[in-house]
Amino acid sequence: MNNIIFLDLKKINSQYEYELKEACSRVIDSGWYIMGKELTEFEAEFASYCNTKHCIGVANGLDALILVLRAWKELGLLNDGDEVIVPANTYIASILAISENGLKPVLCEPNIDTYNLDAQGIKKCITSKTKAILPVHIYGTISPMDEICQLAKDHNLLILEDCAQSHGAEIAGVKAGAWGDASGFSFYPGKNLGALGDAGAITTNDDKLADILVALRNYGSHKKYENLYQGVNSRLDEIQAAMLRVKIKYLADETILRQKIAEYYLSKINNPLVTLPNYQERNRHVWHLFVLRCKERSRLQSYLSENGIQTLIHYPIPPHKQKAYQEFNDYVLPLTEQIHREILSIPISPVMETAEIDCVVNIINNFR
Amino acid sequence: MNNIIFLDLKKINSQYEYELKEACSRVIDSGWYIMGKELTEFEAEFASYCNTKHCIGVANGLDALILVLRAWKELGLLNDGDEVIVPANTYIASILAISENGLKPVLCEPNIDTYNLDAQGIKKCITSKTKAILPVHIYGTISPMDEICQLAKDHNLLILEDCAQSHGAEIAGVKAGAWGDASGFSFYPGKNLGALGDAGAITTNDDKLADILVALRNYGSHKKYENLYQGVNSRLDEIQAAMLRVKIKYLADETILRQKIAEYYLSKINNPLVTLPNYQERNRHVWHLFVLRCKERSRLQSYLSENGIQTLIHYPIPPHKQKAYQEFNDYVLPLTEQIHREILSIPISPVMETAEIDCVVNIINNFR
Ligand SMILES: Cc1ncc(COP(=O)(O)O)c(/C=N/[C@@H]2[C@@H](O)[C@@H](OP(=O)(O)OP(=O)(O)OC[C@H]3O[C@@H](n4cc(C)c(=O)[nH]c4=O)C[C@@H]3O)O[C@H](C)[C@H]2O)c1O
Ligand SMILES: Cc1ncc(COP(=O)(O)O)c(/C=N/[C@@H]2[C@@H](O)[C@@H](OP(=O)(O)OP(=O)(O)OC[C@H]3O[C@@H](n4cc(C)c(=O)[nH]c4=O)C[C@@H]3O)O[C@H](C)[C@H]2O)c1O
Repeated sequence: MNNIIFLDLKKINSQYEYELKEACSRVIDSGWYIMGKELTEFEAEFASYCNTKHCIGVANGLDALILVLRAWKELGLLNDGDEVIVPANTYIASILAISENGLKPVLCEPNIDTYNLDAQGIKKCITSKTKAILPVHIYGTISPMDEICQLAKDHNLLILEDCAQSHGAEIAGVKAGAWGDASGFSFYPGKNLGALGDAGAITTNDDKLADILVALRNYGSHKKYENLYQGVNSRLDEIQAAMLRVKIKYLADETILRQKIAEYYLSKINNPLVTLPNYQERNRHVWHLFVLRCKERSRLQSYLSENGIQTLIHYPIPPHKQKAYQEFNDYVLPLTEQIHREILSIPISPVMETAEIDCVVNIINNFR
Repeated sequence: MNNIIFLDLKKINSQYEYELKEACSRVIDSGWYIMGKELTEFEAEFASYCNTKHCIGVANGLDALILVLRAWKELGLLNDGDEVIVPANTYIASILAISENGLKPVLCEPNIDTYNLDAQGIKKCITSKTKAILPVHIYGTISPMDEICQLAKDHNLLILEDCAQSHGAEIAGVKAGAWGDASGFSFYPGKNLGALGDAGAITTNDDKLADILVALRNYGSHKKYENLYQGVNSRLDEIQAAMLRVKIKYLADETILRQKIAEYYLSKINNPLVTLPNYQERNRHVWHLFVLRCKERSRLQSYLSENGIQTLIHYPIPPHKQKAYQEFNDYVLPLTEQIHREILSIPISPVMETAEIDCVVNIINNFR
């Protein structure tokens, strides 16, 4: 019997076991646990990876998004009630970040081929109150940032990229996180770059924004005991920064492994009951998730499970149908609803064995 | 030349070095990094330490306070603009938690002998809009919770204890964290129970509150992918929970060491230029900080520094004079201002050597 689990994080991290333990020991021994040199080094390394001027470590991916919008409010660029366009088919965190700030999420239908926003879809949602776009590079594929940036420029809108699932995805050599006015990253353990706990970061080229964010994550304080803003506590621990510094070294190689598996899946899975993700130019997609569609999703999921293949659904309930957002419950968003009804994420990860990959292909192809 | 640093966290944690490293390794090897069994165990251990029904781990001490007030709003017990009475002489986080929730901080003058709120002071601040009291057990001494609870009962007010500085302080055998309707704890590394990164917790005996908090810290979700509330991401990492499980075993002994040093300071420091903290019945004070007052504080601080003794000021600027709270800048709060002008925290910690303690005493006594 197969036992192909969805994501074998234990195996992923055990590859770097000694380095990770060494990193923890180094921090324990140092006696310095918050906002020290591991964080500064990691911020420099991640800014360099994204090719942005600044990286500001924060406690998690949701906070990264929340804090950028909060900073823009502090800077007078956004005001209560302003509209922010966001894909309707995202992880709920993208939307929470908007409502948390007293702004209005405008749920936009995605492109059904890429599951991402495109300029055409966004255009339909722009009103006189629109002040920002929050494109989510879902599943690992970067949104068409070239056209979205042009649109934002034409309409004088801010762009906050949600890069929680897309570390390293790029268009024309420019990575996710370097297109928008600012970007939020998650280093949740299961992400392509995952810490061993919660962690996140913001990237930006904007000095003023970076400066205010550094205070907002630290009770609103730049200088000990002096509070310029009403801030929060959202810091990236030294111990997590040290472990991220280990893992970032392997990110590029792990991304290539993901891309190879995805390309193999794309070329070998050929069951007419299953819709494969769109092929994307290499590097446009970093395959955080490999997401199929199937009209009979629940039957497919049970079948795979009976055959020892674990799958997940990202996500079973669209945000507008959640109890947390009763104000949106009556919305009719056919594409978004279809996506949530039909999608299924199959295993993909840098530690999958060839035999496992083949097994996934064969079992899916034998689904009737 | 002496070199008595304010708080030697490196030395404190190096006592438990092997256990801490073993705890990290255990979590790294487990492959499970968020909301797993280390957290569950720590929550049970800390609830048992405080003798409360529930403990809910969160990302830090500020979030602990924010989330309780947020939960009370969700439960309809608080509404925008309601007044919350809080000591004017606290760390700014206590006040941030209130304004973060759209509630109104009412800055109350403390008792000059204990630096804490008392019933008499609170009474003067109660209006028809008062809905809650947020007593801060500052420096490690528990507020007079017996009388504060009675007052709250008489006026139908909620109590949120800020226990960031007072792990284990007690009155009549009942610990800080077990008196109020809910309590917030910080495990910032320098706290009496300190993690090796940011961490915090909420204690309460209220089942309904505990239930909602468990969702609010996790995007508003009790069950994966189902969001009942608009929540945040504020979790206590497995790795920090595992290290806190090591450190909690030594908390009682470390507290006794702090109490012994404090009692020694109280009996030996006898410089008329210096006002000592009030003697407190044992266990009422856990001596997170040992705080003197001196009319010539800056001269005393320089003198101690020249003599190799590092001190800190908790805190140099009262919250109502911070730029972050311009709406309070004109307030006149004479006791609070006097406190901030005169206080000085001298070294106290479980790893101080007898020679160091004597040295601090002698040097202070020689201040002219
Ligand atoms: C677009 C977008 N924007 C903002 C955010 C917010 O970022 P955040 O605040 O950092 O979460 C997200 C987050 N996104 C993710 C979200 O996609 C979802 O991801 P998920 O794949 O459902 O996650 P999971 O099932 O918990 O983990 C994946 C697998 O990994 C295994 N695992 C997991 C853990 C934690 C472990 O320790 N060991 C394991 O073996 C279990 C599963 O098989 O839920 C998470 C809590 C969010 O962080 C996002 O997708
Ligand atoms: C009443 C009340 N309510 C809510 C809160 C909010 O809780 P929080 O969100 O968890 O911070 C606090 C927080 N309270 C504290 C606050 O009291 C203040 O504490 P502090 O003594 O000024 O702290 P510090 O100077 O950073 O550390 C103390 C000493 O320890 C050394 N050190 C420090 C670190 C971090 C290290 O890694 N290694 C070291 O050697 C340096 C110093 O000599 O500032 C902190 C950031 C807050 O968490 C509070 O007091």
